[in-house]
Amino acid sequence: MKKIIKGGRVATAADAFEADILIDNGKIVQIGRNLSEDGAETIDATGKYVLPGGIDPHTHLDMPFNNTVTDDDWKSGTIAAAFGGTTTILDFCLTAGEEKLSAAIEKWHDKAKGKSAIDYGFHLMIGDLTPETEAELPQILEQEGITSVKVFMAYAKEFQASDRTLFKAFKIAKDLGALVMVHCENGSVIDELVEEARRAGHKEPIYHALTRPAELEGEATKRAIELAHIAGAKLYVVHVTCKEAVDEIITAREKGYDVYGETCPPYLTLDQSALAQPGFEGAKYVWSPPLRPKYHQEHLWNALKAKQLQTIGSDQCSFSFKGKKQLGLNDFSKIPNGGPFIEDRFSILYSEGVAKGRITIHEFVDMISTSAAKIFGLFPQKGTIAIGSDADIVIFDPEAKRQISAKTHHMNVDYNPYEGWEVTGEPISVLVRGEYVIKNKEFVGVLGSGQYIKRPLKAVAAEALKI
Amino acid sequence: MKKIIKGGRVATAADAFEADILIDNGKIVQIGRNLSEDGAETIDATGKYVLPGGIDPHTHLDMPFNNTVTDDDWKSGTIAAAFGGTTTILDFCLTAGEEKLSAAIEKWHDKAKGKSAIDYGFHLMIGDLTPETEAELPQILEQEGITSVKVFMAYAKEFQASDRTLFKAFKIAKDLGALVMVHCENGSVIDELVEEARRAGHKEPIYHALTRPAELEGEATKRAIELAHIAGAKLYVVHVTCKEAVDEIITAREKGYDVYGETCPPYLTLDQSALAQPGFEGAKYVWSPPLRPKYHQEHLWNALKAKQLQTIGSDQCSFSFKGKKQLGLNDFSKIPNGGPFIEDRFSILYSEGVAKGRITIHEFVDMISTSAAKIFGLFPQKGTIAIGSDADIVIFDPEAKRQISAKTHHMNVDYNPYEGWEVTGEPISVLVRGEYVIKNKEFVGVLGSGQYIKRPLKAVAAEALKI
Amino acid sequence: MKKIIKGGRVATAADAFEADILIDNGKIVQIGRNLSEDGAETIDATGKYVLPGGIDPHTHLDMPFNNTVTDDDWKSGTIAAAFGGTTTILDFCLTAGEEKLSAAIEKWHDKAKGKSAIDYGFHLMIGDLTPETEAELPQILEQEGITSVKVFMAYAKEFQASDRTLFKAFKIAKDLGALVMVHCENGSVIDELVEEARRAGHKEPIYHALTRPAELEGEATKRAIELAHIAGAKLYVVHVTCKEAVDEIITAREKGYDVYGETCPPYLTLDQSALAQPGFEGAKYVWSPPLRPKYHQEHLWNALKAKQLQTIGSDQCSFSFKGKKQLGLNDFSKIPNGGPFIEDRFSILYSEGVAKGRITIHEFVDMISTSAAKIFGLFPQKGTIAIGSDADIVIFDPEAKRQISAKTHHMNVDYNPYEGWEVTGEPISVLVRGEYVIKNKEFVGVLGSGQYIKRPLKAVAAEALKI
Amino acid sequence: MKKIIKGGRVATAADAFEADILIDNGKIVQIGRNLSEDGAETIDATGKYVLPGGIDPHTHLDMPFNNTVTDDDWKSGTIAAAFGGTTTILDFCLTAGEEKLSAAIEKWHDKAKGKSAIDYGFHLMIGDLTPETEAELPQILEQEGITSVKVFMAYAKEFQASDRTLFKAFKIAKDLGALVMVHCENGSVIDELVEEARRAGHKEPIYHALTRPAELEGEATKRAIELAHIAGAKLYVVHVTCKEAVDEIITAREKGYDVYGETCPPYLTLDQSALAQPGFEGAKYVWSPPLRPKYHQEHLWNALKAKQLQTIGSDQCSFSFKGKKQLGLNDFSKIPNGGPFIEDRFSILYSEGVAKGRITIHEFVDMISTSAAKIFGLFPQKGTIAIGSDADIVIFDPEAKRQISAKTHHMNVDYNPYEGWEVTGEPISVLVRGEYVIKNKEFVGVLGSGQYIKRPLKAVAAEALKI
Repeated sequence: MKKIIKGGRVATAADAFEADILIDNGKIVQIGRNLSEDGAETIDATGKYVLPGGIDPHTHLDMPFNNTVTDDDWKSGTIAAAFGGTTTILDFCLTAGEEKLSAAIEKWHDKAKGKSAIDYGFHLMIGDLTPETEAELPQILEQEGITSVKVFMAYAKEFQASDRTLFKAFKIAKDLGALVMVHCENGSVIDELVEEARRAGHKEPIYHALTRPAELEGEATKRAIELAHIAGAKLYVVHVTCKEAVDEIITAREKGYDVYGETCPPYLTLDQSALAQPGFEGAKYVWSPPLRPKYHQEHLWNALKAKQLQTIGSDQCSFSFKGKKQLGLNDFSKIPNGGPFIEDRFSILYSEGVAKGRITIHEFVDMISTSAAKIFGLFPQKGTIAIGSDADIVIFDPEAKRQISAKTHHMNVDYNPYEGWEVTGEPISVLVRGEYVIKNKEFVGVLGSGQYIKRPLKAVAAEALKI
Repeated sequence: MKKIIKGGRVATAADAFEADILIDNGKIVQIGRNLSEDGAETIDATGKYVLPGGIDPHTHLDMPFNNTVTDDDWKSGTIAAAFGGTTTILDFCLTAGEEKLSAAIEKWHDKAKGKSAIDYGFHLMIGDLTPETEAELPQILEQEGITSVKVFMAYAKEFQASDRTLFKAFKIAKDLGALVMVHCENGSVIDELVEEARRAGHKEPIYHALTRPAELEGEATKRAIELAHIAGAKLYVVHVTCKEAVDEIITAREKGYDVYGETCPPYLTLDQSALAQPGFEGAKYVWSPPLRPKYHQEHLWNALKAKQLQTIGSDQCSFSFKGKKQLGLNDFSKIPNGGPFIEDRFSILYSEGVAKGRITIHEFVDMISTSAAKIFGLFPQKGTIAIGSDADIVIFDPEAKRQISAKTHHMNVDYNPYEGWEVTGEPISVLVRGEYVIKNKEFVGVLGSGQYIKRPLKAVAAEALKI
Repeated sequence: MKKIIKGGRVATAADAFEADILIDNGKIVQIGRNLSEDGAETIDATGKYVLPGGIDPHTHLDMPFNNTVTDDDWKSGTIAAAFGGTTTILDFCLTAGEEKLSAAIEKWHDKAKGKSAIDYGFHLMIGDLTPETEAELPQILEQEGITSVKVFMAYAKEFQASDRTLFKAFKIAKDLGALVMVHCENGSVIDELVEEARRAGHKEPIYHALTRPAELEGEATKRAIELAHIAGAKLYVVHVTCKEAVDEIITAREKGYDVYGETCPPYLTLDQSALAQPGFEGAKYVWSPPLRPKYHQEHLWNALKAKQLQTIGSDQCSFSFKGKKQLGLNDFSKIPNGGPFIEDRFSILYSEGVAKGRITIHEFVDMISTSAAKIFGLFPQKGTIAIGSDADIVIFDPEAKRQISAKTHHMNVDYNPYEGWEVTGEPISVLVRGEYVIKNKEFVGVLGSGQYIKRPLKAVAAEALKI
Repeated sequence: MKKIIKGGRVATAADAFEADILIDNGKIVQIGRNLSEDGAETIDATGKYVLPGGIDPHTHLDMPFNNTVTDDDWKSGTIAAAFGGTTTILDFCLTAGEEKLSAAIEKWHDKAKGKSAIDYGFHLMIGDLTPETEAELPQILEQEGITSVKVFMAYAKEFQASDRTLFKAFKIAKDLGALVMVHCENGSVIDELVEEARRAGHKEPIYHALTRPAELEGEATKRAIELAHIAGAKLYVVHVTCKEAVDEIITAREKGYDVYGETCPPYLTLDQSALAQPGFEGAKYVWSPPLRPKYHQEHLWNALKAKQLQTIGSDQCSFSFKGKKQLGLNDFSKIPNGGPFIEDRFSILYSEGVAKGRITIHEFVDMISTSAAKIFGLFPQKGTIAIGSDADIVIFDPEAKRQISAKTHHMNVDYNPYEGWEVTGEPISVLVRGEYVIKNKEFVGVLGSGQYIKRPLKAVAAEALKI
């Protein structure tokens, strides 16, 4: 079945122009003025942007954390993503201790199976490299088409890898042409600061921020950068939040290091004062790294504009206030870490970025989709509007005004950190491989129709990383 | 007359894909698989890249300098540019003292008239702002569609503007939405160093480099940056050559300043030792700023890759060795400053950049064409392959090997600084607004067919600068 | 006549210990426990600090400025200095245009003659180097024992030297072993900003600060640093006020450049808000560079503690509020620039520095006396308490509390910027070459007894600069 | 018994002057011209410098390392130190695992007892803080007069503390007013690099340097700095070797952090090529951190001159070539780490520093003695020539020429890294508390006469650290 999107303004990471798009068999096959094709369904996009579907490189769906689990699974999570204009996610497959990597991957496939409304891939977390997992790693990446592994320098008790493991991960990644994504915070010292605060009787959510100073993110970022450099590997720093980390990334890039940085909507738009609200309200804003004092926002925007940060992840990791966040009512360290951003990532960046004149539509497309596709090896199948690419497309109304609210959002979580915010711009219809998932703001997709995307390791090594 | 370019690999600053391109009335109207159109001429691009025509933002054709004039005028200069894959140039219109700006512009139009084989625009130089020129400036920019003015901090005796004039230029540009391009070197101190060297009896070309230390470029770059910042204006630093200047630009961008940087092929590929060759051979490598010690190259490449420098100018300013460069045979300070790069800019960047794995094809297109188009307000008419854009297109063979030589080049100058270099990749055919200028490596263009391009001031201010 | 100072706590830039000091013929000849000497007058210093007399490297006494003159001449100025614990000043001898340097120096000698209560030397200002003054300079420095010349990058209409003159001054100073002191602000741009503000109708004192942004001090500091470096000369940056300048100095020193920095009491303790007071009160705080926003203070203190700034000058340049400052009542640009600090420099640094725990007594002595002596070639005659040095000594009560007020100060000016401040520590008695100038808080000195100190050029070149 | 040192040139960290010194009961009691005292022994110092005895803040005497022990014990080590002009050392008391700290200290007292020819104190190493040692630490420091603890970030298998332990050490030190000294290298990654090199079959000494890149010292330095800062503690970085670490220290000090840095003679004078000598000769130059490429030396000298590094430690840790260094003949990782520098530390710094014009005599005294005394709480008892201070004095001939050789040195080790170097300046006589230890270049001291110096914790906290 063919479709023609007519009359819209097509925008890519480089261009913006008025044109029609012909889709055949899920692919974009023609772009031009006044296209017509027998039997093709016509989609009217007059007055709308026609954008590449968003790629969210950082999600945690159906993820266990301490003794609970995130509230959005692959069903609600991918439906919400689609409403928000995201057509592909890369989710983190957790691994643990002695468990075989293949078993972990299988478990993750099971979570998604029959549920995902949009396309997806996996990053593979590396906790502690046993000789067995170290041996298994190359083949599992190759076989599963996974180009990216994740290492935590934080969460001392749960996920934190030693410097030695981190370094080994870089060496392995370098040999395979894979990319290492690192959560850069010094978890050991944070753990000690948390214990101190608890011993001193502090219980309030703001202590989550106060026990994770920005200096510890800067320090860990520097450490990851130097280890990657010595190993000859590329590095992708997830969820950069502060001047301290930005400075290290810029310095490294100035020296020619292959370092990439991601930030997330809340770090660009919210600040630490949210955690200091009266009562337990601050718990809604507890994730790691924490929100920072407001002046950091400017540094993040500047770095984005200067292309020293390249991507925007949602770091979707949702826990309802009732029952979940409340686990930490008497102990800030027991508040599950994470927030619901998979749905509004796209809108927040457009509204705060493009509509407010901070970034151009090209930069927006690059940050929300293209760069992630290139960095993680999805490109050119995903991440752009070009001949031969998947017809993952968002029809976006740049003038629409919408109010964000937990009452109307599609995530399975009882609050929204942007409750009451009015945003400019709204996805109207969303197609994945040429099929409607959202049509005129209604979900019309099919659960389970989302495809798992294998990514070629060599491409990452050879070219795609150079965005 | 319509044309279809078939079977090539289209590359833009964001994308690369196989597709045909339909051209109608000088514009790109369709991009897709298996295009056909009655009556259209077919151009076979199988196995070739189909790239946006190069935009050279920095040329000096038919330019008087001291008591001589550059050897390439608008005829030889634009033919050579076309052979090299460049379809638009932005040339500097000089002004002087009491002369009316309108008279200077008229003179420059006369130089180009009937000669230019490709499209072009002007930057307007500002020397010393008299009350008259200050008053004339806004209307002349508006009327002529000029979005960019040039100020020299160097050439104490010829062009150098005072800090006060530079600052006023920033203020005016800010109000108009124009862009100030600055040659950043401390001309006064250089003049003193030159006098010192001459008093000490030094005559050799290498003293051109030794009397223009990189610190004076770094200093002036910092000065221009702060003046622009205080004025609230945007800054474009021309021909960045050294770590000192790069560092200042990166620091400014980290602070959110609107600062852009251009470098040139020789700074990326040649070094100061070229000036120290025996005899007078070094004179062929005399331009300003001078070539630097080799270690600076790495800093320039790193800055390009990190997108902290955005464009590549040729700084075409050719003087033959015989008769021209030789004016400085007994006095290095009398060697006319400049070199012939308009033809090989494109090839050198492709060969040293893409073919050697330093940059991707996307980055190449961005640097050689798209960024300049956006920064100077030519976009989207120029600078990309997109629906509605001018069909300025280069059919480029990425596998071809070619040896650079003054014997075969098309510039009107008796030497080539890259004499004997083998480069990878070669423009085969070049179209300007859908018409062949180069066809199978032959010039088939029409002198005078190049159009003067007016650029809208508001676009620059509002959006195009945010690349 | 001999004196013994008994029972005090002697402090130098390195040491602090209880000891008696024997003075003979104006020199320190013995330091030890329980000293006794027949016929020596005993001075009881029990419970007091015995410190080297302060050296103020930056004063403007009896200085013409625009159409007025500073209110403190060599009489009131040096008496006030003595009250404040300062025993030597280095005053700036102005020069102008065609005037012979020797004539300027003679004029300055005349100002001091018969009036100075303490010892003194001169710095020689260089405005515009005519061939005549350039020729005269070396011999005048040698003959007059002047090791330091001053160049202004500010005051476009009055004193500003061109970059070329500045550079030549560095070259000459390097050859002679002299030191160049530079006022680092971009005067040309400031002039333009002032004109802009005036055209916009702004009259209030705060516009003095707003038209001299810190970036223009940072820029000029960087420029002076690079010019000095290229010339191979040493540089002393006077009155550093802001992070922008401090950063440049630290970076230069990290690279091994011979760069020294001075700051002044008001920059460490007052801020820009003083100029924004209602009415014309802000005029009392008008000097150049201007007071900065408060956060700069911390950077100056940090730089002092880290020894990246070395000296404290008063920049004494006093104009009474009535009649003088009021010249700018309707035009901020007509307010005479300068403030009265010669008397309280010592006390402010002790009180805010040592008494508040920011610096040690050793650091205090170094900043208030020793470093200046070493940098300007007064050492070891001045600047310390050591065998053979001049007995320039302050008996200082570290516990005394004193309130600063124009009613009680000894300067000939009708206001004090620190009016009402309570300071800890007070000079009780002050000796110059073994003779009382202040005795138990009374002036007992002799006008005209202060000696002009010639300084050896070679010492500066060879060793004294390396403090 | 009294002594008078006559006719010498006394130099301190601030001053230099000709004077006699009267010593009574081991203390300096008088300094002056033409001193005489009945019954005092006269020491002629005409034409000589009279300097404070050197303080070596970094020695490892009689220290077990892997399965061997350093060749210099407290007898040979302190005799050699005395010959070299050092009158006080601070030696590292090692601790291990479960062992009580008091037992470790007792063991260290036993090593020194009856052997030390000069005064000494201890730093206490902290390996892994068990609850027992954590509880014991405050009282042991108080009771033993120890103001400084040492934490290793290197030596993964032997000494390395976790980040958490390091952070706890900072917290404890802050509360006590103690100082934490840190060996900054990332031991875990080094361990992995060493294993890699061994797996690759590399055996040569140069691999000691190649497996410990400077980036890992820079990274660890940054980490220690941030941890200290968050804990509110002071930090002393031992043996700084490279630009990477220097940059971090300067940046921290610019921000007002209390960070101090030590470097060592070999890093200032030798370079990595020493390890690459043919055969096994390079083993003589194996210590950690390793020697660096030559360009780092300039950065260390610049940092010393700018006072951003404050002290010079010997890091004495001697292993003879035969039998000891040779343990690593077939495996570079088995070469005992360390070199013999206790004797020549003083001479090398004087000869390369003062005699070559890099630093002044004041700076020399500060670096070799005074700063260490102040930082570690020995001041003013030690570290200067002042009334009331211990008469620890070196009579130093600044003109003497001496050739360094293992044949003539007094350390118990069969090679000297400076073999054949000619140095300018030589200690002639050395007194500790007024008693000769070296007299006319002969050892005349008494083994066991060296005293253990207790240092007051409060002094360090309150003032002495602010040097």
